[in-house]
Amino acid sequence: MTEPRYRAADLIEYTAALFATAGCDGDKPAVIAAGLVEADLLGHSTHGLQLAPTYLKELAAGTMTPTGEPDVVADRGAVLTWDGKKLPGVWLAAKAVELAADRAVKFGTGTIAIRRGHHIGCLAAFLQRATDRGLMVLVACSDPAFASVAPFGGKKAVFTPNPIAVGIPTAGDPILIDISASITTNGMSNRLRREGKRFPGPWALDAEGRPTDDPAAALTTGTLLPAGGLDHGHKGYGLALMIEALTQGLSGFGRSCAPVGLGAGVFVQAFDPEAFGGRADFIRETEWLANACRACPPAEGVESVRLPGERGLARKRRALAEGLQLYPGILETLEPFAAKFGVAMVKPC
Amino acid sequence: MTEPRYRAADLIEYTAALFATAGCDGDKPAVIAAGLVEADLLGHSTHGLQLAPTYLKELAAGTMTPTGEPDVVADRGAVLTWDGKKLPGVWLAAKAVELAADRAVKFGTGTIAIRRGHHIGCLAAFLQRATDRGLMVLVACSDPAFASVAPFGGKKAVFTPNPIAVGIPTAGDPILIDISASITTNGMSNRLRREGKRFPGPWALDAEGRPTDDPAAALTTGTLLPAGGLDHGHKGYGLALMIEALTQGLSGFGRSCAPVGLGAGVFVQAFDPEAFGGRADFIRETEWLANACRACPPAEGVESVRLPGERGLARKRRALAEGLQLYPGILETLEPFAAKFGVAMVKPC
Repeated sequence: MTEPRYRAADLIEYTAALFATAGCDGDKPAVIAAGLVEADLLGHSTHGLQLAPTYLKELAAGTMTPTGEPDVVADRGAVLTWDGKKLPGVWLAAKAVELAADRAVKFGTGTIAIRRGHHIGCLAAFLQRATDRGLMVLVACSDPAFASVAPFGGKKAVFTPNPIAVGIPTAGDPILIDISASITTNGMSNRLRREGKRFPGPWALDAEGRPTDDPAAALTTGTLLPAGGLDHGHKGYGLALMIEALTQGLSGFGRSCAPVGLGAGVFVQAFDPEAFGGRADFIRETEWLANACRACPPAEGVESVRLPGERGLARKRRALAEGLQLYPGILETLEPFAAKFGVAMVKPC
Repeated sequence: MTEPRYRAADLIEYTAALFATAGCDGDKPAVIAAGLVEADLLGHSTHGLQLAPTYLKELAAGTMTPTGEPDVVADRGAVLTWDGKKLPGVWLAAKAVELAADRAVKFGTGTIAIRRGHHIGCLAAFLQRATDRGLMVLVACSDPAFASVAPFGGKKAVFTPNPIAVGIPTAGDPILIDISASITTNGMSNRLRREGKRFPGPWALDAEGRPTDDPAAALTTGTLLPAGGLDHGHKGYGLALMIEALTQGLSGFGRSCAPVGLGAGVFVQAFDPEAFGGRADFIRETEWLANACRACPPAEGVESVRLPGERGLARKRRALAEGLQLYPGILETLEPFAAKFGVAMVKPC
């Protein structure tokens, strides 16, 4: 059966109505809905609308704060620190990217550390808010209340998967990198477990610290391996530590506080190339790089070399023109909320 | 045969004398010598004194600039851009870390992009210049004149290994991360090739894009694989692109300029935790993290979980107390320079 197609604008309107009815104020419903649908448009289907039921449940439970602004812990111009007070993370991160971009234009870089945000969803979905302005941007996060990834060589989880995303403007489409410091994510592990599938390789350790391809083991008593895996997992371990320090260290709130419930420490940084060697030279270099990668002859068994974000942006363009096909089952999980809130179900286009 | 031990101070004095005689002015000989010996102290033996003959040859050939200061391309306070004019990279990077740290104390972050530096050696060797002041620091570099790493899925080299190092202060020893975006480095590949050894896994592709463990193939017609390798090399590919943009894009000089000869684009960034959530909270978090990693029960076949830099710092302490054993053959390669310059050979302690 082919999945039906939906207009992105209709999905955003529908999702925004759900979050508005759930109590979110101001532009939060629209920004959250746009962020989640953007993830689906780019093909990050584990971090798009699939997250909406979780967020709506958190709002109902009072563990996500529906209204208000983050508290400014410190503002030194080029750097800011926010207390996110468990406000919707997708909204906080989108606002932080916009503000970091403003500060980058003024100071060269703009850096924002956020403590106690709520879950921020798909990091790649925020990048074009900066790259569309000609700025390079980094977004990273961790959740100090959870751990599923062990330090390299260990068998007890200390870290979350700790994603980092990077948006790099070029003369054409931006490069949109979104990688985690672990081989795979909790979202993907959960999906594979639900579908009775295995990892394609030994991406996890069981409780005894033995390699396994079983997502169930990884999600219960085992751990996910850092990027590089059994062979060179010290690389992912290093990245995980860097991201913990950027997100929890700089924001001043993390695992040592033993927080509970879904949340996020967030690090956002924008760079204005004009304040460094100049925008024209930056773009000349990144465009050269993008072309060199696209022109790279493929290795054995590979069709063509792609840039990070290339497939996602192509998918987004097609979905905006022809309608978006969601990953099977996602929309059904929103139906109970729509029914309860009296929001009309979104219709295929 | 046991390698002889040398006092670190003697090695630094000896190496500084060589660089002074080779024409380096001001504090360059002392800073270069300290940087190279620091790498050996930390155990990064492919990026310590092993590099000195190369640097001395570059000075003799006029392809490393012995005297003067970098040109300031732009200075916006929180961010600076230097033209390194092929000045010694170890000296440039050390100076940049100091200045980035000064600016971080003033603005919260201090960021320096350097174009046309010379080779900067071991990135980990610079980190304690910032962490000793309670600052977090990142150092990354690339060499736009060379390429040995292919984009994930490709078989033609586009990137250098592109290392990134991160120094994170804790209540005790700092965490010192030094990883490359490729599985292994050119330095290690060269050493293994020289010694007739293989990689421990398929860390490279041959000219046809087929996996290989042969460092010779990797260094001639093949390519080194990005971190994550055949299984999830899109992670190393993403890091490589990020580092190219930070080092060549921001500095405004890179591969599109088709430079020749050893050189480096460099990115240095320092963070003052005091300008974010506060130094005490930062240290509380990083110390918790360090303790959690050290206390992590080891996986099957692992003796204990270590923090990045832990073994290096222990090695350094021992070497400072008992004398430093260099990797075999390194000191011999400096003898011709000592003889030519009339510098007395360093003596074991």
